[in-house]
Amino acid sequence: MSGTTFDVVGIGNALVDVLAHDDDAFLATHGMVKGTMALVDADTAERIYAAMGPGVEVSGGSAANTMAGVASLGGRAAFIGRVRDDQLGAVYAHDLRAAGVRYETPPARDGAATGRCLIVVTPDAQRTMNTYLGASVELGPDDVDEETIAAASVTYLEGYLWDAPGARDAFRRAASVAHAHGRRVALTLSDTFVVERHRKTFLDLIDGEIDLLFANEREICTLYEVDDFDDALARVNHHCEIAALTRSEKGSVIVGDDEVHVIDAAPVPSGRVVDTTGAGDLYAAGFLYGLCRGFDLGRCGRIGALAAAEVIGHMGARPEQPLAQLLDARPGG
Amino acid sequence: MSGTTFDVVGIGNALVDVLAHDDDAFLATHGMVKGTMALVDADTAERIYAAMGPGVEVSGGSAANTMAGVASLGGRAAFIGRVRDDQLGAVYAHDLRAAGVRYETPPARDGAATGRCLIVVTPDAQRTMNTYLGASVELGPDDVDEETIAAASVTYLEGYLWDAPGARDAFRRAASVAHAHGRRVALTLSDTFVVERHRKTFLDLIDGEIDLLFANEREICTLYEVDDFDDALARVNHHCEIAALTRSEKGSVIVGDDEVHVIDAAPVPSGRVVDTTGAGDLYAAGFLYGLCRGFDLGRCGRIGALAAAEVIGHMGARPEQPLAQLLDARPGG
Repeated sequence: MSGTTFDVVGIGNALVDVLAHDDDAFLATHGMVKGTMALVDADTAERIYAAMGPGVEVSGGSAANTMAGVASLGGRAAFIGRVRDDQLGAVYAHDLRAAGVRYETPPARDGAATGRCLIVVTPDAQRTMNTYLGASVELGPDDVDEETIAAASVTYLEGYLWDAPGARDAFRRAASVAHAHGRRVALTLSDTFVVERHRKTFLDLIDGEIDLLFANEREICTLYEVDDFDDALARVNHHCEIAALTRSEKGSVIVGDDEVHVIDAAPVPSGRVVDTTGAGDLYAAGFLYGLCRGFDLGRCGRIGALAAAEVIGHMGARPEQPLAQLLDARPGG
Repeated sequence: MSGTTFDVVGIGNALVDVLAHDDDAFLATHGMVKGTMALVDADTAERIYAAMGPGVEVSGGSAANTMAGVASLGGRAAFIGRVRDDQLGAVYAHDLRAAGVRYETPPARDGAATGRCLIVVTPDAQRTMNTYLGASVELGPDDVDEETIAAASVTYLEGYLWDAPGARDAFRRAASVAHAHGRRVALTLSDTFVVERHRKTFLDLIDGEIDLLFANEREICTLYEVDDFDDALARVNHHCEIAALTRSEKGSVIVGDDEVHVIDAAPVPSGRVVDTTGAGDLYAAGFLYGLCRGFDLGRCGRIGALAAAEVIGHMGARPEQPLAQLLDARPGG
């Protein structure tokens, strides 16, 4: 195993988020389930967008948010994901690079437009998402740059990619390249609906390919079809090397190396929870950053909590404050 | 003079704002003058964008922000301005319509891309702007829909348009249609550099065509080449029917109908000044809303102050809270 150029390379959907505020009645009218992500086609995306209020556009995508978090902590991050050569694609690439993430996937020159995620933020700070995958869905094995994968300690995949067959193949290739070079492979389950759609594949994948699993309480319970978190904990133990499970304000639980760590949520630096999504993405960023520094699992979890606390204190799923500064103030996480 | 369909129709640049945070050193490196707007070409815009950090995209444009404010107060607003038929153009049209503003200018099918305004927000909440006018610059007399102008109590023009020759002609046509239908014509001076570039034309225009002038203290002093606000006040009195002059935290002064009103700034509902631009745009919105309701000039100024106070309490130059609600709570403004 040779030295690494990157701590983590993320593979995920490249999506521009379009955020607007609305109420629960809006969700009901459009048949949306609060706090979840639904895939929509181009026509439905147009229809929902037409009904939405004035929006704000920011670059997003779950794994890309995590990579922005790793870079903000001072880690070395790269991202693989597909946009088109259109205006939103240019915005996407700019924002990721400006966040310090290496991003070299060539934009598609034809086909669907850059993907977007229409996000309705309700007054309870929850996000409900409708995703038009667009060019993202065209990610395939050829987009997986072997050199980047081989040069990263961890290859990190977002579960959302499982909805795109080409992207599944891309991830399988990435996992095999990573393992061939003695690297670790991580997966985040992303969403309960994604888990329901792909439970069998995920269970097999975790068995065979995944060293490090990220999930929140609802996702891990959905995966094992159990109601109780403690039952899910028993199932995930020894299913993969390390599992980091987040529980919102109840903190997180980490199982691995025959250890269990129970970590409290960190106080929100801004003093108030404004927008909860991005929490899981940033928890993973902090955890991965710690892991690549060789920290023990408890400290990795505390850094994850710190990063998550920053991102829920403002609108948007990428850090506003340099996380390295927050970490300097609390080096133990 | 027949009845009106609109309270105000704004004519202005149609620009998507790209906002990023940075420090004074960034302004210095790129030769930017804090708090002002510079026009840049496509190449310079690309260069500045490449140097900027991750951004947030929101629809902007000074007169369009004012129209969004009029609509948010419950007034009837329309907007004339040019985008291209590209992704940012679609975002622009969506946001303005979703804000309740009638917007029917057909997007350009060729030529420059939708214009954008690259905005650097420094820690002191000031904005420094670099504008690539793009498709906006192609606005011409043919884009001026006579029916809309004839049907609006006030035609409101942003001074920024003076940088585009076709747009100047568009405004002259709009002013002549408005006056032929017994309507009023308003101008906002927009920016000290714009005033310096076009002082002579502005002075003539105010003499001949403008019923209602909006300016901030620096702009009005630049127009008359005086150092003292009180000297500018003496000059503007009787130069046009009504002048509403804003002075940041010192409030505003209104001259007109042989009256002078001195209005205090309103308290910021969010409790803290976050981002000052949009203040002038929203002051004009409140003032015009009041004027179209037939309120006295003092009350118009107080509603302007109320609207400005909302917009400086958050990032972005369009209201986040429905201004009609704020006004319900303080009907006198």
